[in-house]
Amino acid sequence: MEERRVEGWAARDSTGILSPYSFTIRKTGPEDVTFKVLYCGIDHTDLHQIRNEIHMTNYPLVPGHEVVGEVVEVGVSVNKFKVGDLAGVGGIIGSCGDCSSCKSNMEQYCKDRIMTYNGVDTDGNPTQGGFSSAMVVHQKYVVMIPEKLAPEQAASLLCAGVTAYSPMKQFIQSDMDVINAGILGLGGVGHLGVMIAKAMGHHVTVISSSDKKRVEALEHLGADAFLISSSAEEMARAADSLDYILDTVPAVHPLESYIQLLKVHGKVFIVGVSPKPLQFDSDTLILGKKSIVGSLMGSIEETQELLEFWAEKKLKSMIEIVKMDYVNEAFERMERNDVRYRFVIDVAGSNLN
Amino acid sequence: MEERRVEGWAARDSTGILSPYSFTIRKTGPEDVTFKVLYCGIDHTDLHQIRNEIHMTNYPLVPGHEVVGEVVEVGVSVNKFKVGDLAGVGGIIGSCGDCSSCKSNMEQYCKDRIMTYNGVDTDGNPTQGGFSSAMVVHQKYVVMIPEKLAPEQAASLLCAGVTAYSPMKQFIQSDMDVINAGILGLGGVGHLGVMIAKAMGHHVTVISSSDKKRVEALEHLGADAFLISSSAEEMARAADSLDYILDTVPAVHPLESYIQLLKVHGKVFIVGVSPKPLQFDSDTLILGKKSIVGSLMGSIEETQELLEFWAEKKLKSMIEIVKMDYVNEAFERMERNDVRYRFVIDVAGSNLN
Repeated sequence: MEERRVEGWAARDSTGILSPYSFTIRKTGPEDVTFKVLYCGIDHTDLHQIRNEIHMTNYPLVPGHEVVGEVVEVGVSVNKFKVGDLAGVGGIIGSCGDCSSCKSNMEQYCKDRIMTYNGVDTDGNPTQGGFSSAMVVHQKYVVMIPEKLAPEQAASLLCAGVTAYSPMKQFIQSDMDVINAGILGLGGVGHLGVMIAKAMGHHVTVISSSDKKRVEALEHLGADAFLISSSAEEMARAADSLDYILDTVPAVHPLESYIQLLKVHGKVFIVGVSPKPLQFDSDTLILGKKSIVGSLMGSIEETQELLEFWAEKKLKSMIEIVKMDYVNEAFERMERNDVRYRFVIDVAGSNLN
Repeated sequence: MEERRVEGWAARDSTGILSPYSFTIRKTGPEDVTFKVLYCGIDHTDLHQIRNEIHMTNYPLVPGHEVVGEVVEVGVSVNKFKVGDLAGVGGIIGSCGDCSSCKSNMEQYCKDRIMTYNGVDTDGNPTQGGFSSAMVVHQKYVVMIPEKLAPEQAASLLCAGVTAYSPMKQFIQSDMDVINAGILGLGGVGHLGVMIAKAMGHHVTVISSSDKKRVEALEHLGADAFLISSSAEEMARAADSLDYILDTVPAVHPLESYIQLLKVHGKVFIVGVSPKPLQFDSDTLILGKKSIVGSLMGSIEETQELLEFWAEKKLKSMIEIVKMDYVNEAFERMERNDVRYRFVIDVAGSNLN
């Protein structure tokens, strides 16, 4: 069990251009799982981070926080995994273990959470993500990929998928007859949200600013209804009809008009960070006992739940698999929403080392 | 059981000036409770309504929706009340009985709720409130005033009190060790909120824009802490400390700075309508799994619960009892916050008829 030399792709400055980067990961500790990376998803946070758009990036930065790998070594105290297992890592690889968030299995809200990359690990070294040949992570933050699930399918569930699943799961065992779900924004998180909500048995309405995605939503993703938010008439007709809305829009948007779509006691789950404040009318919220609820990724427990759920329901996300040397182009295409719906890097197939 | 001539005080136009007004109430129906009004609270909604500030006022208008009376007649199917009982009526006197809100005992959210005044009753007549000698109300919307509770004390609980109680009650049986409550705005609802939260065993922080109300909050209302929202230093020190905030401010205010006071999973309950939109930062909500939740008054069931709770805990609200002919002055004083904290009209002692 020695330190390991690994080969990744890193950004070196705020241009965000990635190129090969060789670095070292710690030797497998007693509670650690070391795995060879097979696949890694790409999402918008990666783009913001490599370009230092959150102004906290330490370079060189190896992004990637939807990581699926094959276990190659486990620490002496690890009982959850054995060599050869398929393992997954999402947005965090550590937390304090002691705060109320950690104690209630919501460790993603721990103030001392360690982000999968651009964080500082327990050994003082910078954390580096899944755009690399191998990773070593404390077993507590590693999930087991179910046997029935293709590893490339699992990747985008580890952040995008669980971001949708975590707030929605409270509606799984509801006593409501039919649950009416709205999905706002049809990107990486939104498209998985549609599929998860459908698999939960919800009646799913995709809300979009134009008619462009109608066929995609209804025919390919299986949504039940399509609502054009720019049509005042359609919006008025849909007032008071939804139990919840998964709001994935990472930009300023007229929240008030979406809140009006909610039934009494309805909730809008905000999962996309908007660069400027959002607005709402207090009377709409008050008169309908409505809520605006923030939600960050999902817990390790919820991620494991989602993986089992996804496998059991035999769901298939829409991904485009690329090699590592395509990653810069992939980021560019993602930026102009030219991906249906998520890039996943075939890391093991990219001849990194 | 005949129609009854009653004497009230009504506004006739948007000046909002009230003067004596004689009108008729229906005869006691099979499910009705008719009572002589003893006391009636005054609140800000009354002021907005008499002045047509919500642009929906039908004149003449008899306001009053915190009504305590003595039952003088009951319908043949009424088993909940008998003559001589003390009865209470809050913000609504009817609802459809059939919608999901009604079926889940949240009838205040029924789209067809009938407001206690300025509504249209089931018989097609305008509803008139408690600034009158008697009222007739379907038994379902009448609460029983506990024997141990002074009727003038009960009045302000029927709207202001239950507005605070309804959202806060979810924290009564929490498994959290100590619940940290914030009360924003120390008016009619806020002062009752402090007392109810204290009686629930919460650690209560009053949040105020200046130091003026410190003694009042800590010494007279029994709050545990006082936080000046205009002090950036105090606000920063109090970050991430509250489980919930009861936000009673009926005006535009910097919601974001209060959301930052919440712990992970914390909730801010909006109960005061602001004339303009409120703003928040999506990342604060997301990173802390925080919620903004609207809440309207309380249900009949919750009102009954609060009355029992108030009697059991031997609480005493701060009210100023006035006669009906003082009501115009009372409204003026309330408008300039010159009341500690709620006017209650001694209707029976006002020689209306």
